[in-house]
Amino acid sequence: MQRKSLARMPCPIARSLERVGEWWSMLIMRDALHGYRRFDEFQESLGIAPNMLTRRLKALVDAGLLERPQYSDHPPRYEYVPTERGRDFRGVLVALLAWGNRHFAPEGASVEIVNTKTGTPAEPILVDRRTRLPIAAPDFRFVAGPAAPERTRRRYAQPSQTLSGGAPPRPAKSKPGTI
Amino acid sequence: MQRKSLARMPCPIARSLERVGEWWSMLIMRDALHGYRRFDEFQESLGIAPNMLTRRLKALVDAGLLERPQYSDHPPRYEYVPTERGRDFRGVLVALLAWGNRHFAPEGASVEIVNTKTGTPAEPILVDRRTRLPIAAPDFRFVAGPAAPERTRRRYAQPSQTLSGGAPPRPAKSKPGTI
Repeated sequence: MQRKSLARMPCPIARSLERVGEWWSMLIMRDALHGYRRFDEFQESLGIAPNMLTRRLKALVDAGLLERPQYSDHPPRYEYVPTERGRDFRGVLVALLAWGNRHFAPEGASVEIVNTKTGTPAEPILVDRRTRLPIAAPDFRFVAGPAAPERTRRRYAQPSQTLSGGAPPRPAKSKPGTI
Repeated sequence: MQRKSLARMPCPIARSLERVGEWWSMLIMRDALHGYRRFDEFQESLGIAPNMLTRRLKALVDAGLLERPQYSDHPPRYEYVPTERGRDFRGVLVALLAWGNRHFAPEGASVEIVNTKTGTPAEPILVDRRTRLPIAAPDFRFVAGPAAPERTRRRYAQPSQTLSGGAPPRPAKSKPGTI
């Protein structure tokens, strides 16, 4: 499949996807954050072809999400350990888990997050660390940041509906600025 | 690229990725949630080949993230509008944006979320809706849910490190249960 490099786009979502925007990469990170370390563990968990797993692991090492320390000299063997950047990815996985449980688990949850003390299932929501207000309209909105190029500024000159929970109105313009 | 169906896996992360686990799908949802509706708007924003865009839009309609109302009879024209399930995906996009800004924006943020009243950039974190505690160890942990098959129960019989922020210890077993 032809691929356009997302890393050159200014959008932080696109840049994140450049690093992890394939199923396998996200599932490898899921397993690595669960505590899996060795090639065979990932392979057994994912049922992925070895050459594909090798490629995806290398890409995650190159992107700085995994480290590759050697754990055996004879024969030389390496394991894969999440870096700080890789561990910080757990927020994305938790958001995917919560969304999946809400929409694609008609038979009930297979994996959930619970309060360790009470056993009560958590309901993850995004809030602002400082104010603890939920990240949603009208309290928060997307804006072009200090490093935004002109196209991004044009795009966000119109109010974004991304943080609105309800049915959004049809935008007035049919050709909004592009990012 | 050969693809194994993730939808049949019990893991809610895998099931989510089955629906949106390609860059284009996530970027189309980003644009749809921003307020874009028409084929040409997505194409201009993404610079994606028309046949690829058609396929990804169809997949998102089939997965119930977009609706496709007709907005013109002559000629017949359709637009793409996020469903409730599609709007609920914004949490994942916000998590990707926050992670991208933290790790892949050395020149500063191009897009950010700000408090509408104060203009202060938000720092999105995941908390439990009820207790407002951050979703992190040791307050929360992953467990097998009520619908978990045997393999998933084995996997989560060992404590998962996914919610730990610090450097995780090497797990005791080298062949943990697979999901």
